[in-house]
Amino acid sequence: MNEREHKLIEAGFALDNVPAPSGLYAPLVLDGTVAYLSGMIPLDAGRLAFTGRVPDDLSLEEAQKCAVLCAANLLRVVVRDLGSLDRIERVIKIAGFVASAPGFTDQHLVMNAASEFFIRILGPEAGRHARSALGVAALPLNSPVEIEALFKIRS
Amino acid sequence: MNEREHKLIEAGFALDNVPAPSGLYAPLVLDGTVAYLSGMIPLDAGRLAFTGRVPDDLSLEEAQKCAVLCAANLLRVVVRDLGSLDRIERVIKIAGFVASAPGFTDQHLVMNAASEFFIRILGPEAGRHARSALGVAALPLNSPVEIEALFKIRS
Amino acid sequence: MNEREHKLIEAGFALDNVPAPSGLYAPLVLDGTVAYLSGMIPLDAGRLAFTGRVPDDLSLEEAQKCAVLCAANLLRVVVRDLGSLDRIERVIKIAGFVASAPGFTDQHLVMNAASEFFIRILGPEAGRHARSALGVAALPLNSPVEIEALFKIRS
Repeated sequence: MNEREHKLIEAGFALDNVPAPSGLYAPLVLDGTVAYLSGMIPLDAGRLAFTGRVPDDLSLEEAQKCAVLCAANLLRVVVRDLGSLDRIERVIKIAGFVASAPGFTDQHLVMNAASEFFIRILGPEAGRHARSALGVAALPLNSPVEIEALFKIRS
Repeated sequence: MNEREHKLIEAGFALDNVPAPSGLYAPLVLDGTVAYLSGMIPLDAGRLAFTGRVPDDLSLEEAQKCAVLCAANLLRVVVRDLGSLDRIERVIKIAGFVASAPGFTDQHLVMNAASEFFIRILGPEAGRHARSALGVAALPLNSPVEIEALFKIRS
Repeated sequence: MNEREHKLIEAGFALDNVPAPSGLYAPLVLDGTVAYLSGMIPLDAGRLAFTGRVPDDLSLEEAQKCAVLCAANLLRVVVRDLGSLDRIERVIKIAGFVASAPGFTDQHLVMNAASEFFIRILGPEAGRHARSALGVAALPLNSPVEIEALFKIRS
């Protein structure tokens, strides 16, 4: 196990707790040196950590926990499908979707938790990425957050 | 005509019924071996098959028909702009946006219809893809569904 | 200064008025010849030009101004991070998110203003791109519009 995987486990995220896809798609598609990851929701051992819209059904802090869990799930998929977190040269881009009640406009604060987490696990250079943060009407299974990602992969 | 195009026609989608873009953009931009396709809406011969939000204005089943029509339109664009469906090495990623009334959280079931359709027309390996499914407030022209795609292209 | 930068300034957008990111991310990540740009909001000298949802809080015309400002901010980031607008070989794809009140379905008209602007500044071939236009519930800082982009970069 490498240092990144050790950090992920220390942060509370067992490597093998990879969520099953909620539909007929591949969690990760590798095209050359770019891995396209499907939108991940905050599933933990098959159950959503929270449901609903921010801030009516969960707080900003709870939504940030969801964002971290989405990020951890993205990393777990890399471990399972590509064998190691050391395959990640850097995070290229993430897009984060936050189920938002009318008037909630702190999607960037929700997503900061995911961005911080990538930097914490992968380091300040490999973890830094381009990003979009959006507030959506609803997400599959009533998830409060969904995050997709592009990773640069080394062979 | 190749087998994929034959299947597309058999499924009820004439190859030349390609929707005109609803704005000042290109339906497809090819960068090396990756084709970026603009978001397609369920236009059929210049008219939207359905309008409104799921499930208030159309049912889940009707939204799934929209998703299939969006997928067919993405494939039609490839035929027109790149000459053949055999140019598709694989579907890399799709993102599906479903105009959702409050409380609708089955966006993944809507998008499964598109994912199945890609596999049906292109085969289980070429058709399998990464995916994000989101519920949005509204879409251009009051469309219920919009799907964008990345295809890996062979020369 | 090249012709494109001259046009950008003539259109009213000083090159050095680059918005600071609203979070822990990089405005631009370059992967080979593709630059991934983070979602930009209509910040002008640190302030949003407009806030709220279309059309309740701002008009279609004002939202189009926001879209142009987002596009200008994307170009300003390229100047700052890559040194020159001449580094752009072409705009590959943009995605535009419009904070939409119920019933607003002219997101494509909002985004046409950004698409026109790219063509105006970069020319009809380099400026033409694939596009998705979506209506979302809300955006960070109550921004009415957010646009992300992929640019093909020459060395």
